[in-house]
Amino acid sequence: MSLLIQGATVVATPRGTSALAGPGQSVLDLLPGAVVRCDGRDIVFVGEPREHDRLFGAPDEVLDAAGGTVLPGFVDPHTHLPFAGYREDEFDRRIAGARYAEIAAAGGGIVATVAATRRATFDELLALTLHRLDLQLAGGTTTTEAKSGYGLDLGNELKQLRVLREAGRRHPVEIVPTAMPAHEVPPEWRHDSDGYVELVVSRIHPAIAAEGLAEQVDVFCEWGVFTPDQTRRLLADAGRFRWRIHLHADELCDLGGAALAAEVGAAAAAHLLHASAEGIAAMARRGVIAIALPGVSFFLRERFAPVRALVDAGVPVAVATDCNPGSSHTESMPAVIALACLGAGLSSEEAIIAATLNAAAALGRADRLGSVETGKQADLVVLDAPSPKHLVYHFGVNLVRHVVKAGRVVVSDGARV
Amino acid sequence: MSLLIQGATVVATPRGTSALAGPGQSVLDLLPGAVVRCDGRDIVFVGEPREHDRLFGAPDEVLDAAGGTVLPGFVDPHTHLPFAGYREDEFDRRIAGARYAEIAAAGGGIVATVAATRRATFDELLALTLHRLDLQLAGGTTTTEAKSGYGLDLGNELKQLRVLREAGRRHPVEIVPTAMPAHEVPPEWRHDSDGYVELVVSRIHPAIAAEGLAEQVDVFCEWGVFTPDQTRRLLADAGRFRWRIHLHADELCDLGGAALAAEVGAAAAAHLLHASAEGIAAMARRGVIAIALPGVSFFLRERFAPVRALVDAGVPVAVATDCNPGSSHTESMPAVIALACLGAGLSSEEAIIAATLNAAAALGRADRLGSVETGKQADLVVLDAPSPKHLVYHFGVNLVRHVVKAGRVVVSDGARV
Repeated sequence: MSLLIQGATVVATPRGTSALAGPGQSVLDLLPGAVVRCDGRDIVFVGEPREHDRLFGAPDEVLDAAGGTVLPGFVDPHTHLPFAGYREDEFDRRIAGARYAEIAAAGGGIVATVAATRRATFDELLALTLHRLDLQLAGGTTTTEAKSGYGLDLGNELKQLRVLREAGRRHPVEIVPTAMPAHEVPPEWRHDSDGYVELVVSRIHPAIAAEGLAEQVDVFCEWGVFTPDQTRRLLADAGRFRWRIHLHADELCDLGGAALAAEVGAAAAAHLLHASAEGIAAMARRGVIAIALPGVSFFLRERFAPVRALVDAGVPVAVATDCNPGSSHTESMPAVIALACLGAGLSSEEAIIAATLNAAAALGRADRLGSVETGKQADLVVLDAPSPKHLVYHFGVNLVRHVVKAGRVVVSDGARV
Repeated sequence: MSLLIQGATVVATPRGTSALAGPGQSVLDLLPGAVVRCDGRDIVFVGEPREHDRLFGAPDEVLDAAGGTVLPGFVDPHTHLPFAGYREDEFDRRIAGARYAEIAAAGGGIVATVAATRRATFDELLALTLHRLDLQLAGGTTTTEAKSGYGLDLGNELKQLRVLREAGRRHPVEIVPTAMPAHEVPPEWRHDSDGYVELVVSRIHPAIAAEGLAEQVDVFCEWGVFTPDQTRRLLADAGRFRWRIHLHADELCDLGGAALAAEVGAAAAAHLLHASAEGIAAMARRGVIAIALPGVSFFLRERFAPVRALVDAGVPVAVATDCNPGSSHTESMPAVIALACLGAGLSSEEAIIAATLNAAAALGRADRLGSVETGKQADLVVLDAPSPKHLVYHFGVNLVRHVVKAGRVVVSDGARV
């Protein structure tokens, strides 16, 4: 099965098979009038129409990009997709002045979502997750990370991850599953967090690994959640399970999370609002990717991650939705790309690379995803816009007209195929 | 032709036929499980299903709201829709530190759009405008204001307004046209703004009125554009033409625009970032509606209008996209509702009233539009969300599933009918 995407004003893409940092993160290649040829799951040609016609015969299928912009499919490297229950009342309280910690103390916060997610059946959670994947795909996301972490006991963590496995079988969006039983200290262990850490290490992580339900592990290393020492203990078996390490770090205060991410060899660290200069330097030295979550800053009305300092220090920056019911209830990568620029201060080129190649690298997939280049998998987005800058410039509306996943058109003229 | 909207979790609406101010702007009526019956163009019943069935027979058509939220159709009370040309390069320069005034001095800004709009043919401008109306409708906008002001000479101002008249004939979104030749001093009058004011008063306004192309007039009263005295002169004939008055006021500095709006009997004043306490008090006394444009603040990375001070002072607050190619290139009322809350500090109830009843009042249509009540026109939105708060809470994705305009379903399951 071959597919030709033609008629675009421009194909815009980063280049390479690893994360881009520093000035490299602002280099988006612009190929005016280029066509993209896919064969099976992969891209086999990107270039001038005449050169294509000289090298290839007629394709099985043609997608008319009609003056639009072709980009790599978006990769969302940090979400909490399999959740139940909403917390829409919390934000009016925040607008009225309440802090996140106060709301949590009043029974809101993660604990509220844990209760709702524990109550949800497998089928309920699957339906919710599939709906969110639909919304992600409509916004051009072709690969997403997704975590457990609202179960916080053996059965419910397994339930969340089995939901992700089943959702991945049914939905075109590729799911990278992450074990995160250490997302919060569960209510029943509130007075013995060390005891919960031992349960995770001795029982929950091994059970997840035994079913092959995760390829990453994540820990919320934060004041009041898990300490740096507990985090080290929780990650001790990551190598044995061949799990890539992600961390939630320095969200609420500087606990040395950025430096810890470098110390434990994490692929990526997320949040980082309060990361120190030393921590940022350590991340740069070890090539730890920073995952900025500008939707959280927007929704919680907090500061943004220091993305300019990260880029300037040579840390590759990725962006993610952090889709979750408490602090960033959105599935839209275009929305967080706009916020990464207009809120946090990335250029549109830096933000697009953050949402494609660098996000793919955070998930260990930069060899295969994240750019429109011969040899990469054909994960593509066609925008109804004459330049990639319109992703930020023309904010608030969905510009994603077509989506191609692994060589197959899955969204056409805005509708699922 | 009768239509029944049933199955909603809730119908949420302001009440009344005039703008709501102060504490009244936070009162959104919630009618759980209510149905809405339309007959012809109008709403004839809002209430309990059993009561409906007792009073009415089977409808000609049923719209299944499927657990969603029914709201009044959004009214966008401030846009610059009929424009040509994009200015997507300006925002990267702004992110890099350039101010709007510097960009204008370098050939960007309104003048760039004036040149492109003058070059565009009637048909080109019509196609662009119809596309923008499509995007507005997809986001739930059923009525929109739209201005001239990128022509800045007799022929091109008439061209813009004739485009709006033709677009209104072809498109379900209802257009409220505004004459705004005094949007900027055109380049050819740069050194004689008084001369341009006299041209507008003696030639352009009368020609627009003679063709019946406008029902409102707007002036950009601002340092470096038109002075308060020029603004008074420009508005002298508004009464004779039966034009409702809107003003662009106090956007860049406090020039007394808010007080001037009260003095000239304006229906509404927009921007107001720098409005003084005295100006706000004058608006409250005269019932001038404030139109907040949070998309501009977001896109220009400037402060937001003082919406809390306006609400607290008793000024009715509306919100609008200000859709234009320089400072807010979005057609999405849901996006500006989210920004009005998370950026500017309205509650979700205040923002929804700002986008419906108060916006309708700014356009002189609160008797007919802006709420879901018996006797009002059947302009409705059905959200794929269990509560109206999700418009802000679930940001960045398009929750608008169905749209009804004047009793007719015009968007169904996200697609134009």
